[in-house]
Amino acid sequence: MTGELEPRSSWTVGECPIARTFEVIGTKTSYLIMREAFYGTSRFEEFVERTGMSEPVAAARLRELTDEGLLEKIPYQEPGQRTRNAYRLTEKGSDLLPVLVAMMNWGDRWLFPHGARVELRHADCGQPVHAELRCEAGHDVGRDQLQLSRRKRAASAA
Amino acid sequence: MTGELEPRSSWTVGECPIARTFEVIGTKTSYLIMREAFYGTSRFEEFVERTGMSEPVAAARLRELTDEGLLEKIPYQEPGQRTRNAYRLTEKGSDLLPVLVAMMNWGDRWLFPHGARVELRHADCGQPVHAELRCEAGHDVGRDQLQLSRRKRAASAA
Repeated sequence: MTGELEPRSSWTVGECPIARTFEVIGTKTSYLIMREAFYGTSRFEEFVERTGMSEPVAAARLRELTDEGLLEKIPYQEPGQRTRNAYRLTEKGSDLLPVLVAMMNWGDRWLFPHGARVELRHADCGQPVHAELRCEAGHDVGRDQLQLSRRKRAASAA
Repeated sequence: MTGELEPRSSWTVGECPIARTFEVIGTKTSYLIMREAFYGTSRFEEFVERTGMSEPVAAARLRELTDEGLLEKIPYQEPGQRTRNAYRLTEKGSDLLPVLVAMMNWGDRWLFPHGARVELRHADCGQPVHAELRCEAGHDVGRDQLQLSRRKRAASAA
C-alpha cells in the first residue's frame, strides 16, 4: 500500500472509518445478530435460539443495532397475542454484508483445516462467493495496487 | 439470502467462521494495529504513535497477533543498539485486507456525512476501491443471489 499520508501525526482515531465502524458494531454478539438477520431471522426468540446467547444479551444487541439504524422494528401480532416487534435489516445494515462475507472467507480459509461446514455460493451459477477488491473502473485491485490518499473535497462543499 | 440450512438447531457458534474470526481478531485495537501494518508500519514505537494506544496495549495486541500468525517478528539492529523486533504481515495477516477495506467502505459511507478524510484508490487508474461480492465464475453477486449451503466434503477426505 502506498500513499501520501504524511504527516501521520495529523491523524486521529476519530477520523479512521475502521475505528468508527468498530465503535458502531464491534462485538462478536453484534455480528452474530447481524449474521442471523441476513439469514432471514426476524423474531426475538429466534435470534436467541440461533445465536445461543442469553435473552438479556440478545435484547441488548438488538436494541443497540436498532438505535444505530442497522435494524428496524416491525410490529406484528399473532391471533390472541399482544403486538410484538420483529427486526429487519435497513439499507445501512444490509450494506454491512461485505464485512461479514470477508470475515467468513477469512475464517473459512485460515481457521478451519477442511473449510467451514457452510459456504456461500452464487445462487445463479453455484460457484463460491468471495469479497474481492475492485475499483470503480472495474479493475481487480491487488494488495500492492492500493493507494491511500486524502479525499479531495468538492470546492462547493462549503 | 436463501439456502438449505435446516435444521438450524444443528448449528453451533464454534462452527461459524464469522464467530471464529472474531475470536482471533475481535477488538478495535487489533484492527488498528492491522491497519497500521497494512500502511507499512513495522516498529513498536511507530505502532504506539500512530494508533494512539498505550505501550502496554500495543504490546499486548502485537503479541496476540503474532501468536495467531497474522504478524511475524523480524529482528533488526541499529548501530550501537541492541537487537529489537519489527513486525511484518504474514500471508494469513495480509489476507485480512478485504475485511478492513469492507469496514472502511461501510464507515465511510454511513458514519461520515461528507466521507472520511482518507480514501482508498487504485494506484493504476485512480478510481476508488471497494470490497465487492463476486463468485469464482466472475459474476457480481447481489445480496439476494447468495445461497448458503453445507459444504460438500470430498469423498476421499475420510
